[in-house]
Amino acid sequence: MAELMREVPQHPAGTEPLDGHEAAVILERARASVDPVLREAIESLPGSMRRIALHHFGWEHADGTPAAGNAGKAIRPALVLTAAAALGGAAAREVAVRAAAAVELVHNFTLLHDDVMDRDTTRRHRPTAWTVFGDADAILAGDTLQALALGLLAQDPHPAAGAAAARLAACVVELCAGRHADTAMETQDPGEVTLDEVLAMAEAKTGALLGCACAVGALYAGASREDVEALDAFGREAGLAFQLIDDVIGIWGDPRRTGKPAGSDLAVRKKSLPVVAALASGTPASAELAELYATPYAKEDLDRTALAVERAGGRDWAQVQAADRMARAIAELSRAVPEPAAAEGLLALAEFVTRRTS
Amino acid sequence: MAELMREVPQHPAGTEPLDGHEAAVILERARASVDPVLREAIESLPGSMRRIALHHFGWEHADGTPAAGNAGKAIRPALVLTAAAALGGAAAREVAVRAAAAVELVHNFTLLHDDVMDRDTTRRHRPTAWTVFGDADAILAGDTLQALALGLLAQDPHPAAGAAAARLAACVVELCAGRHADTAMETQDPGEVTLDEVLAMAEAKTGALLGCACAVGALYAGASREDVEALDAFGREAGLAFQLIDDVIGIWGDPRRTGKPAGSDLAVRKKSLPVVAALASGTPASAELAELYATPYAKEDLDRTALAVERAGGRDWAQVQAADRMARAIAELSRAVPEPAAAEGLLALAEFVTRRTS
Repeated sequence: MAELMREVPQHPAGTEPLDGHEAAVILERARASVDPVLREAIESLPGSMRRIALHHFGWEHADGTPAAGNAGKAIRPALVLTAAAALGGAAAREVAVRAAAAVELVHNFTLLHDDVMDRDTTRRHRPTAWTVFGDADAILAGDTLQALALGLLAQDPHPAAGAAAARLAACVVELCAGRHADTAMETQDPGEVTLDEVLAMAEAKTGALLGCACAVGALYAGASREDVEALDAFGREAGLAFQLIDDVIGIWGDPRRTGKPAGSDLAVRKKSLPVVAALASGTPASAELAELYATPYAKEDLDRTALAVERAGGRDWAQVQAADRMARAIAELSRAVPEPAAAEGLLALAEFVTRRTS
Repeated sequence: MAELMREVPQHPAGTEPLDGHEAAVILERARASVDPVLREAIESLPGSMRRIALHHFGWEHADGTPAAGNAGKAIRPALVLTAAAALGGAAAREVAVRAAAAVELVHNFTLLHDDVMDRDTTRRHRPTAWTVFGDADAILAGDTLQALALGLLAQDPHPAAGAAAARLAACVVELCAGRHADTAMETQDPGEVTLDEVLAMAEAKTGALLGCACAVGALYAGASREDVEALDAFGREAGLAFQLIDDVIGIWGDPRRTGKPAGSDLAVRKKSLPVVAALASGTPASAELAELYATPYAKEDLDRTALAVERAGGRDWAQVQAADRMARAIAELSRAVPEPAAAEGLLALAEFVTRRTS
């Protein structure tokens, strides 16, 4: 990502450099603003659903005793609040807290259901809800959080609440369709999946909610229709840049990142963006890659597979695309928020998301 | 139910008798009003989610070819529209169509998820969504329908839309908690389940959405807070009456009803309302029932089990309770809608629901 970030326009003298620290401060402030609303909403739930939600957010252990809380990085609520502040100042940020909590609830409803569908057993270093409470209760808790999210907005007297709710509901539909496409592609032949399809899936699955978060913040700032759409596009493009970089890391790894080993996506034959781009390139390397992907994974073929993706141009394509998406994100942002100082927070968050550091 | 219905106050001369035909006409009109909005909302979905929803509503076969449509009886949208008409006339009914579609979408979202959780393979004489599209897609389609429902209300310019959305979202939370309680009770010892708990569960699982439908209709008629609550209570009480009668039928059967054989609930050791009432009676028959429920089902014990429920007072209790709930429903209704002619449609629907005829 270091080479991508060099393309980010330099900031005027006097503004803080985007060193990742600024994003950390923004995320921490967002968590502090949103948690009381989130907590109050969850405390309002009937006992059974409350218990599952408190566990999911890391506020309770499985036995119901209090836990320190590990509710994730709060990227989406931070985008809501930072977008509101960028377009409407501190007053807009303040009135958007409930909407930020609603967006975070939607994100967490999708996580609860994703974990059931994927049979994932851990999230945020804790057992997933379905492993503790069973599939049915995890599904019900997800349903409950979606209702809680849209209910929060329905009760919000702010004039933007209705438009925000409509946007968030439309985003849920897009998230579901994106998630469906992701699963459907897993069973398709790699040659059948087009680059446009994978890009559309990534935008729906990853970009849509980031874009929606920014757009909701803009709505609460009373922004014009054009500015709302520009902020939506900013979030979507940053989300796609993130996905492209994440896919590069999934093949070639990232020295700054612990966890996922290099090559893990190739081992599971994932149709990630660089792989699909490579397969579509029509080069001799793409034919070799298609052959490798058609056979079961063998450890000794890993380097050859990664090299085939690279030779077929998949790595370069993904990096150029990521830089391009990031440039588009910044262009959309500066259209809606021309003053660099006002745009800085959102830029810091976009950088944080795509660099995945700190 | 015939004996219960005798307690319904007689209607003034000149109004149609509640012979079940009136309800059929109301339901048919509701279906005709709501289907175009429902259909348009579903057609707006991305292809994957649209296909599952069209199949669920009976508008498409599994292979995507058009089907005649069998989207259920439309009781909930009929309650919305009839409540709106009762309190606000034809104009209120007209503006409430979108809200009626939203309530129907919520009902269908819960059906999609219930079928996944219960592993039910047929609904409305057709294969359930998860058997055709898989668990993940049925979960996603349910999520989508919830979002579509609350999104419809968020886009509705009517001044009542926000309050209706807040009510519908709160109702989803109650439905989820009720559904959780229902499943949790299955694994509990029969002696551990109290009558209050089963009644609360039945109210949440069955009464809440019927009450919400009526309340939403009242909101669209611009009714006072008191009238909205009275209509909510009307729907809830009618829902409980329905559940009590359904539970009686589940043990002793109903000659007018085909399908479920007599005794089916006893065979699966269901903690239905008459059974829990019988177990709580402290009679010798309740001890016998507890013993029978503690042993696996045997066909030759079925008559003895039904008799034990009856001797312990479970049957009488359920019938008196059903009559009482129906009387309360009618009292709430006449408080909000004192004019018999205006209340007639809602009464006909309550009777239809509890008689389960035609």
